[in-house]
Amino acid sequence: MNNVIIGQSGGPTAAINASVAGAYVRAKELGAKKVFGMIHGIEGLINGNIVDLDNYLSNPTNVELLKRTPASVLGTCRYKLPVASQKEEDYIRIFDVLEKNDIDMLFYIGGNDSMDTIMQLSDYAKEKGKPQRFIGIPKTIDNDLPVTDHCPGFGSAAKYIATSVKELIRDNQAADPRKPTVVIVEIMGRNAGWLAAAASLSKSDDCSGPDAIYLPERDFDMDKFISRMKEFADKGKPALVVISEGIKLSDGTYVCELGGKVATDAFGHKQMSAACKVLADKISAELGLRTRTVELSTLQRAASHMASLTDIREAYQCGYEALNAAAAGETGKMVVMKRTVSAEAADGEWNSEVPYFCTYGTYDIHSIANCEKMIPDEWITADGCGLTEQFDRYARPLIFGEVMPIIAGGLPRHLVIAEAV
Amino acid sequence: MNNVIIGQSGGPTAAINASVAGAYVRAKELGAKKVFGMIHGIEGLINGNIVDLDNYLSNPTNVELLKRTPASVLGTCRYKLPVASQKEEDYIRIFDVLEKNDIDMLFYIGGNDSMDTIMQLSDYAKEKGKPQRFIGIPKTIDNDLPVTDHCPGFGSAAKYIATSVKELIRDNQAADPRKPTVVIVEIMGRNAGWLAAAASLSKSDDCSGPDAIYLPERDFDMDKFISRMKEFADKGKPALVVISEGIKLSDGTYVCELGGKVATDAFGHKQMSAACKVLADKISAELGLRTRTVELSTLQRAASHMASLTDIREAYQCGYEALNAAAAGETGKMVVMKRTVSAEAADGEWNSEVPYFCTYGTYDIHSIANCEKMIPDEWITADGCGLTEQFDRYARPLIFGEVMPIIAGGLPRHLVIAEAV
Repeated sequence: MNNVIIGQSGGPTAAINASVAGAYVRAKELGAKKVFGMIHGIEGLINGNIVDLDNYLSNPTNVELLKRTPASVLGTCRYKLPVASQKEEDYIRIFDVLEKNDIDMLFYIGGNDSMDTIMQLSDYAKEKGKPQRFIGIPKTIDNDLPVTDHCPGFGSAAKYIATSVKELIRDNQAADPRKPTVVIVEIMGRNAGWLAAAASLSKSDDCSGPDAIYLPERDFDMDKFISRMKEFADKGKPALVVISEGIKLSDGTYVCELGGKVATDAFGHKQMSAACKVLADKISAELGLRTRTVELSTLQRAASHMASLTDIREAYQCGYEALNAAAAGETGKMVVMKRTVSAEAADGEWNSEVPYFCTYGTYDIHSIANCEKMIPDEWITADGCGLTEQFDRYARPLIFGEVMPIIAGGLPRHLVIAEAV
Repeated sequence: MNNVIIGQSGGPTAAINASVAGAYVRAKELGAKKVFGMIHGIEGLINGNIVDLDNYLSNPTNVELLKRTPASVLGTCRYKLPVASQKEEDYIRIFDVLEKNDIDMLFYIGGNDSMDTIMQLSDYAKEKGKPQRFIGIPKTIDNDLPVTDHCPGFGSAAKYIATSVKELIRDNQAADPRKPTVVIVEIMGRNAGWLAAAASLSKSDDCSGPDAIYLPERDFDMDKFISRMKEFADKGKPALVVISEGIKLSDGTYVCELGGKVATDAFGHKQMSAACKVLADKISAELGLRTRTVELSTLQRAASHMASLTDIREAYQCGYEALNAAAAGETGKMVVMKRTVSAEAADGEWNSEVPYFCTYGTYDIHSIANCEKMIPDEWITADGCGLTEQFDRYARPLIFGEVMPIIAGGLPRHLVIAEAV
């Protein structure tokens, strides 16, 4: 095996660095001479900005530290690689850097948009008869990649969200009963509501869970929302409502747009903000309710201090399996996970003790890039404001297990790659 | 010893329940027949709404669970007990409930306003020749009670804040370098900036720390802020700025007021909101900078999943010592902590290994109630936007140690007192 290179793209997560760790470790096991990292993703590669990861990861303690470091240790980018017919110079520069550095295999860790990059590069290589192999490693807290059972990064974000929502509910229910407050928690998720749905995991015999969860999978009905909030107000009880940032009315208007300003990112996605504020203002004005808004913002994707052990292990393994796939000659694929359902689970007798595990495989990148997976209809309750037990059965195992941070001076330690900051 | 009663008041914290645990355990050790809890503080007591804590805490596992449960397990209130001359009926009802239930000692866990309640009650008892004793147990994430070295609840909030800010910095620095963002993190603190200051603890060899911290102890200068932000913009680097919710201009106008709506709470305090949004809009409009705001909101006071072991132990001990004080005949006092500084620390050779510990005592409630302690001038850097090493030396030991949550189904378990929800 010659040299390999790993890059990270899109939004950071608490688990994306574990995939770098897994890919690095397997590359060395398979005899790679050098394992490079792209600094700030494909854009760094285009500019020849790469780093020798041996400088940081030859020490096994640092590999462990990397698994506990949030965000993208190599730096990320949101550069959408144009198709080769539009801007071949990008491709020429990329393959030039690969060839000059004897790099045979490129691994890119990311979500929907990043998988497009793997697709473009592998298609281009095939067309030009180039030998390099390109494998995608899934990553997104949004959990919206198709084919794979779930995505590394989701489990840790889900664990943090469910924990935080449980704490927020505790806080709100403890408050002065003369002043019941409706707390509206806004959670990331543009088109798919997986993360907001994860707030439902907080429900247990020691927690009532959110009083309602509004997902982008369902049209948001302002009148129904107001009347539901009126029920809370009439009871005089505190309430906590969870919304996805991307909820929209039946005419396609995002709720956040009702509040004014909206920007657009490089991929043409609308930048959401403060749908929770719009709704809080609305029920405060119409019902006179006390409200409080909480936006989990980037906290939810960076909270490695509350990572899921299952997630970190799987993210590591996805990186590891990507190397196996490339070494076996594959290209133009993404690593996918397939859940192995035990007999008990199939039986509906699932509980937290039922063994859960995933097997790993790869899948054609053309079926994955630029596609989004929504929550299945039947996992959403009839009133559209909750999740069924099927969702719990799906998501619960993904938040199992804790990763003890490495603490110094009272705070979690992180690994830093100097070239990326 | 006859019976005792414990109540919680003011804002919940991650540590306030540990004080209930300590008070309960010591009361039983000292032979109290019954240990009651007030449901929703003094207001519950006035209404005779009390609960026998043996129903919940006679099982030692539940005591441990309570120490790991955020918010006020007994429920809180924000009722300002009027002075007796204004509304003696409140006092008559309180002493009636105490006498009917053979309660000799009342313990109230809270901050500045709650200590006023202890002062009123102990003064009234003295005046009327009543035998009951009243002891305050300090609690406030704001860390602004006088006399005591610091306040239970602060250490855990500080640990959570420093951890989260470190993760947010990591996330922001990983971002696409073509799109540097100024993140503005808003932290609780109306008049005292202790919590915002705690963000400075994130600075270490693996983290640059916040690029600026704005505290209520210093007048906020909008022009200087803009020109400082312009420096960031000129460098083209991502930045993260921390602000206290209570920062205000030299004319006394709160920064959040520049954005519009402001409400007032029961104590006449102005309800702050979204100073960070005001500043983000400002630098976005004037400098064209990309911005993101993060309000830590109630997350910061409820995050028992990232509690400081030092804090939880001290909160427990404060509850424990309150019982000792009352049993020794004291009344009209609050438990206070006094830091024992080792020779090395006094020497300026402080590091994280130097033993830190506190001793416990009590102090006259009249010198404490309704007073606020600010950050000493000399702990704030000359430019007003940072903290000196003295602050680090003071605050660092308070975030030491981790409390492992009791996890089930992937999430921390909490103790619930059914009467309070």
